[in-house]
Amino acid sequence: MIDMEAIGKRAKRAARHLRGFDTESKNCALLAIADALHEHRDTILAENATDMAAGQAAGTSKAMLDRLNLNGRLEGIIADVRKVAELPDPVGEEFEEKNLPNGLHVRKRRVPIGVLGVIYESRPNVTVDVTALALKTSNAVILRGGSDNLHSNIALVDAIQAGMKKVGFPAEAVQLIRDTDRRYVGELLKLHKYVDMIIPRGGNALHEFCRQNSTIPVITGGIGICHLFVDDSADVPGALEVIYNAKTQRPSVCNALDTVLVHEKIAETFVPQIIQRLSGVHFKLDESLAQFANGDAELAQEGDWDTEWLDLILGIKVVKNLDEAVQHIETHGTAHSDGILTQNMQNAEKFLNEVDSAAVYVNASTRFTDGSALGLGAEIAISTQKLHARGPMALTELTTYKWIIEGDNHVRP
Amino acid sequence: MIDMEAIGKRAKRAARHLRGFDTESKNCALLAIADALHEHRDTILAENATDMAAGQAAGTSKAMLDRLNLNGRLEGIIADVRKVAELPDPVGEEFEEKNLPNGLHVRKRRVPIGVLGVIYESRPNVTVDVTALALKTSNAVILRGGSDNLHSNIALVDAIQAGMKKVGFPAEAVQLIRDTDRRYVGELLKLHKYVDMIIPRGGNALHEFCRQNSTIPVITGGIGICHLFVDDSADVPGALEVIYNAKTQRPSVCNALDTVLVHEKIAETFVPQIIQRLSGVHFKLDESLAQFANGDAELAQEGDWDTEWLDLILGIKVVKNLDEAVQHIETHGTAHSDGILTQNMQNAEKFLNEVDSAAVYVNASTRFTDGSALGLGAEIAISTQKLHARGPMALTELTTYKWIIEGDNHVRP
Repeated sequence: MIDMEAIGKRAKRAARHLRGFDTESKNCALLAIADALHEHRDTILAENATDMAAGQAAGTSKAMLDRLNLNGRLEGIIADVRKVAELPDPVGEEFEEKNLPNGLHVRKRRVPIGVLGVIYESRPNVTVDVTALALKTSNAVILRGGSDNLHSNIALVDAIQAGMKKVGFPAEAVQLIRDTDRRYVGELLKLHKYVDMIIPRGGNALHEFCRQNSTIPVITGGIGICHLFVDDSADVPGALEVIYNAKTQRPSVCNALDTVLVHEKIAETFVPQIIQRLSGVHFKLDESLAQFANGDAELAQEGDWDTEWLDLILGIKVVKNLDEAVQHIETHGTAHSDGILTQNMQNAEKFLNEVDSAAVYVNASTRFTDGSALGLGAEIAISTQKLHARGPMALTELTTYKWIIEGDNHVRP
Repeated sequence: MIDMEAIGKRAKRAARHLRGFDTESKNCALLAIADALHEHRDTILAENATDMAAGQAAGTSKAMLDRLNLNGRLEGIIADVRKVAELPDPVGEEFEEKNLPNGLHVRKRRVPIGVLGVIYESRPNVTVDVTALALKTSNAVILRGGSDNLHSNIALVDAIQAGMKKVGFPAEAVQLIRDTDRRYVGELLKLHKYVDMIIPRGGNALHEFCRQNSTIPVITGGIGICHLFVDDSADVPGALEVIYNAKTQRPSVCNALDTVLVHEKIAETFVPQIIQRLSGVHFKLDESLAQFANGDAELAQEGDWDTEWLDLILGIKVVKNLDEAVQHIETHGTAHSDGILTQNMQNAEKFLNEVDSAAVYVNASTRFTDGSALGLGAEIAISTQKLHARGPMALTELTTYKWIIEGDNHVRP
């Protein structure tokens, strides 16, 4: 029986406590956590082996087991904690400073959000990544991982808390819900008195559950039905390489390509080139491409354009023009990452204006929608909702601001 | 019977349409709306008189009737629309531009949020203010006003839509829910397929209802239990004037003062000075101030420190030191506006660091937490939650951003 209210209270108290630590102390805590994870490595890997054995016994898929496995990866995860220590600290930055005509001195200062609730599934590395990013920005965090990695997560959080205690950091700032009964997810989502932001990391069902049940603001995202529109002016060899990369470089992630929209003027020659260049990929074709249907290519069914494939599957649809491409993306996309391949800069600008996605591209692979790839140094989530942050979220997106207003006994007339 | 799904669809279509209008066209539409409101003034005032008569017949309080009344105020409301036309347009601004080492050109561009849902109570001026701010930032809006001003709101929105049509603006961008049955509020809060942000403008119960029932991000706020801490080094005459202003200049609003916290070293002399300077105010005193209780001052009861007075009532509490003041604000405040009155700059900085409110003050009245007073030129709401925007929200806070990524057929290695 877990007392979620008590977890919330402790997190809020820890968040207040964290506001008193400067950048140097926070970095020192991150390094202590890295050291502690290294010291506890035998326990962590043993507990992870327990999770792996239980997964194998339960017939968990190879892909899922691979995501669960820490063996051979723990040192990389620890190295990432040390990297976060090296990133610049956004907390305390001041901006939009001004003196008003009445002499009031006004500015905004970047401050931590407070308490984050992070709900995730089978990757235990998330436990460590999220902890490092939260602490770097002086946020407390409540973690709820999946049942298939509970042993690994407990071992990781025990190590993390041991490291924090060693340098006088409040261990309550990182709490794991040590029971994966789903009722506690429901209770977490109602703790708006203590928790300021919920970050779900998982599939559509998890995001939808959070949206429906949370009284705390939720960062929804991570679902990407991504499109590339091949304009009639596209540089054909370059376009083929971009499509190849966007689809095949890592098909299981949200920024991988799902549908190629091809301008009708070039479809007849371009579509067979796609099919040839992406051999090994399974294609879903619109009706006008029936002539290309064969073993590796079939006609698209109802719902196919609305599916995030996360696999070596690619939809190909012929469109009349840019407007129809934009319309298709508006209807079937998830406002994640969409691009145009073109040599016509007017068309590029029109696409950038009209497609309302978190990331819009000209002549580049959608695979760049990623905190590291875009130079943020880290990533906690990719937001596809409109408020607070859009696209890759890193350290700055884990902060908010306060207004600081200084006067000389100013009163409002 | 209102088809809320159809309203949502129309709003989303209008939002897409609005993205095609430049600043000049939007300003032109705002001026056309101002003209139309002026042309329709007789109808608007007649419909408002109907609402007023119904209110009087129902025994509505004078204060509420005053909020409802447009007579003598309509021209001022119209002038405010013209002022919004003159404000700078944040849409299209680009920022955080950079070239990555791989040659990718990355920037963020400010874009409209999309569709706003605004739920408000008895002030029909909100109908016009919100419309102007939404259209200026290319957002569509769904308005749901109170039942006591439905006639006024219908007349206002009819005028607004007439003005929009005159200049070829999509009238669907401003829709009023023309039935005040509460079921439609519940339905609006579930339209996350079409609506991107909910702004409630009203009391605690409305904010709580939205928080509990919305699947759309809600900007909660507008509830201010505001504090001023009088440090032992405060400039006494100046501090008295700031307290007087913060409490009495407009007691019915959220940034008005609710509680003064007085350092124990100066309480004995300072508290009687407050009581004298703020004659006409009713005081709630902590137990240590029992000696000052008389007709105008009584001992505070359970819950008084957690009450937003919105009236000429002021709590006074003696605290041991700055830490106890911060602790009281943390426990009883609403993270809206809180200040310190001090001549000790170290204490000022400690207060600014430790008090986690949307606006923190040194030697100024809390009444400045307001879009106009802080130089934003307008205000749509005051946020006391942490995400997206904190404190006064104006035009920029009605926008989000997209990432624009341009390459030369870049692929991810």
